[in-house]
Amino acid sequence: MGLANRNHGLLLETLRLDVTPTGAHYLLNHFDVPILDQDRHLLKFTGAFDAPCELTLEQIKSFPAKTMPVTMECAGNGRAGVSPRSFSMPWMYEAVGTSMWTGTPLAPLIRKAAPRSDLVEISFTGADYGFDMGEDHFFGRSLTLQQLEELDVLLVFGMNGAPLLPQHGAPLRLIVPGWYGMASVKWLTDIEALTEPYDGFQQMRTYRFKETADDEGRPVQAIRVKSLMLPPGVPDWKTRRRYVQAGPVELMGRAWSGAGRTIECVEVEIRDEWHEAELQKNPDRYAWTKWSYAWAAEPGEHGLRCPATDSAGDTQPLDPPWDMSGFANNAAHCVNVFVE
Amino acid sequence: MGLANRNHGLLLETLRLDVTPTGAHYLLNHFDVPILDQDRHLLKFTGAFDAPCELTLEQIKSFPAKTMPVTMECAGNGRAGVSPRSFSMPWMYEAVGTSMWTGTPLAPLIRKAAPRSDLVEISFTGADYGFDMGEDHFFGRSLTLQQLEELDVLLVFGMNGAPLLPQHGAPLRLIVPGWYGMASVKWLTDIEALTEPYDGFQQMRTYRFKETADDEGRPVQAIRVKSLMLPPGVPDWKTRRRYVQAGPVELMGRAWSGAGRTIECVEVEIRDEWHEAELQKNPDRYAWTKWSYAWAAEPGEHGLRCPATDSAGDTQPLDPPWDMSGFANNAAHCVNVFVE
Repeated sequence: MGLANRNHGLLLETLRLDVTPTGAHYLLNHFDVPILDQDRHLLKFTGAFDAPCELTLEQIKSFPAKTMPVTMECAGNGRAGVSPRSFSMPWMYEAVGTSMWTGTPLAPLIRKAAPRSDLVEISFTGADYGFDMGEDHFFGRSLTLQQLEELDVLLVFGMNGAPLLPQHGAPLRLIVPGWYGMASVKWLTDIEALTEPYDGFQQMRTYRFKETADDEGRPVQAIRVKSLMLPPGVPDWKTRRRYVQAGPVELMGRAWSGAGRTIECVEVEIRDEWHEAELQKNPDRYAWTKWSYAWAAEPGEHGLRCPATDSAGDTQPLDPPWDMSGFANNAAHCVNVFVE
Repeated sequence: MGLANRNHGLLLETLRLDVTPTGAHYLLNHFDVPILDQDRHLLKFTGAFDAPCELTLEQIKSFPAKTMPVTMECAGNGRAGVSPRSFSMPWMYEAVGTSMWTGTPLAPLIRKAAPRSDLVEISFTGADYGFDMGEDHFFGRSLTLQQLEELDVLLVFGMNGAPLLPQHGAPLRLIVPGWYGMASVKWLTDIEALTEPYDGFQQMRTYRFKETADDEGRPVQAIRVKSLMLPPGVPDWKTRRRYVQAGPVELMGRAWSGAGRTIECVEVEIRDEWHEAELQKNPDRYAWTKWSYAWAAEPGEHGLRCPATDSAGDTQPLDPPWDMSGFANNAAHCVNVFVE
């Protein structure tokens, strides 16, 4: 309950909007939100760089800026649907959101710092600090040089046209488009060029797909294809059950996938029949795609599902994929409605 | 879980700041967030007014504007600590926040609409609609003319220097300083002058203190005195247990009360000894008061408490007051820390 009351998900009714309102975007912070002074903030490039340096926020803002919509999803999204459930944030389906992120591409800055030829990968460390499984650490993650270039990684200082908010990583964070949120390190203070593989806690101990407790696991990386439906009708306060009037109902939602894959198809299931939804043209590579379907709602109980298929041919499963930690559960979203 | 993942509380570490960052303020919405068009929004003054009218947002913004910090708290804050627990949002202590609200005082607009002499009270209705206990309704509340004047009620269109966000009531809402949040109707569309007592669902059926199920109850109104502590040290990710280094630790927090009462005293309990905290001078009548206490932390387990006393002489209890729905539980906040 402590975790659920701190962290919060998307309000599904805001799926109507291309950009999730600030504050309605999901939030997952491992430790306390650091309250940092942007005027004194320094980003340090250390380790195996030939030209290590320190940059102030003003200096970072003087590089070419770019604003782009990116759909971000928590690796633990859907965990509550995976049984037996691991003890962590009990997301159902709502740990996702799309923001307009403003920053400067990271790759040119890394090139400027001149990684040595024996570089293995680059680590990114935030100012958020605490304990997990008895080990204290600053939150950190790593990327290879190739990943960093391919993923269009952005060094971000703005969100939805305003400065970054403290709980979203102010004054400086990474955005790694197409990967689950754990890669987008917040409150970024250190970029280190490593000549040995990175062994940070949040890369080696968590965020790994494990079949069993002693499985070493495979890293969680690109976002799996997924689609959410804006629940039609009106809710009941406590049960969140939906009430819909019989007749024409415009169903709509958003679908996305990772690693730059586009959405090819969304199918809507109504009483065991499948209908292809209409996709809105989406010019933004890293943002979700809007879909809609004109439903003639008939009285009775309905469980509406809306699985998507991406450009790699991956389709959402109807049942949750198994993983010890409940990571990356992309089982089809089901909205229960009562039509009267 | 559906309620806990939708609604979210203050991040306690942001108690360091006078104003809660946007998005880190608590949020409790009964129904779906309506996505309204601010250019077409109308506020209607209807019923027993001699000069009923309709105002656009532009017209409302042309009246004298005022910006003020107000500490708002959910009536259900602390519910999770009341046993047996009623089935509703399981707040522990985090349903509170302080924002800078910008709007225009409501009382002069009501006077302009000229309530008839047989007026009993005034109702306020939002655009949020749904079911509760089988009854469908728009969220609505009422105030008497006297309450409206005494409480400095504000008709609000801005929050923290930006336009209101959809989930906080855009484009227009009430702020009723000093009362629990249910009175601050969001997505405000209708102000009706009534010549009979208001019988809206959210005034008569919920938000009432009840001793037993068939008790008619007393209305929940002014905020009870309360204090929260910024948890010292660093957290463990899952348990949220706090780890603190032995030695000098600056404890701090915020205390507030309702109905315009000020904070007179905050006491910090450390191992059964009580210490008076230092209060920061607070010029803002409706905003929380910062307190601090210099603690010499000694190794071991500690349960730190910080009850406040307000200018009416009310002191927080150490145990939760009883209420069927778990409303207004202002038992002292306890932070468990491990000093090493």
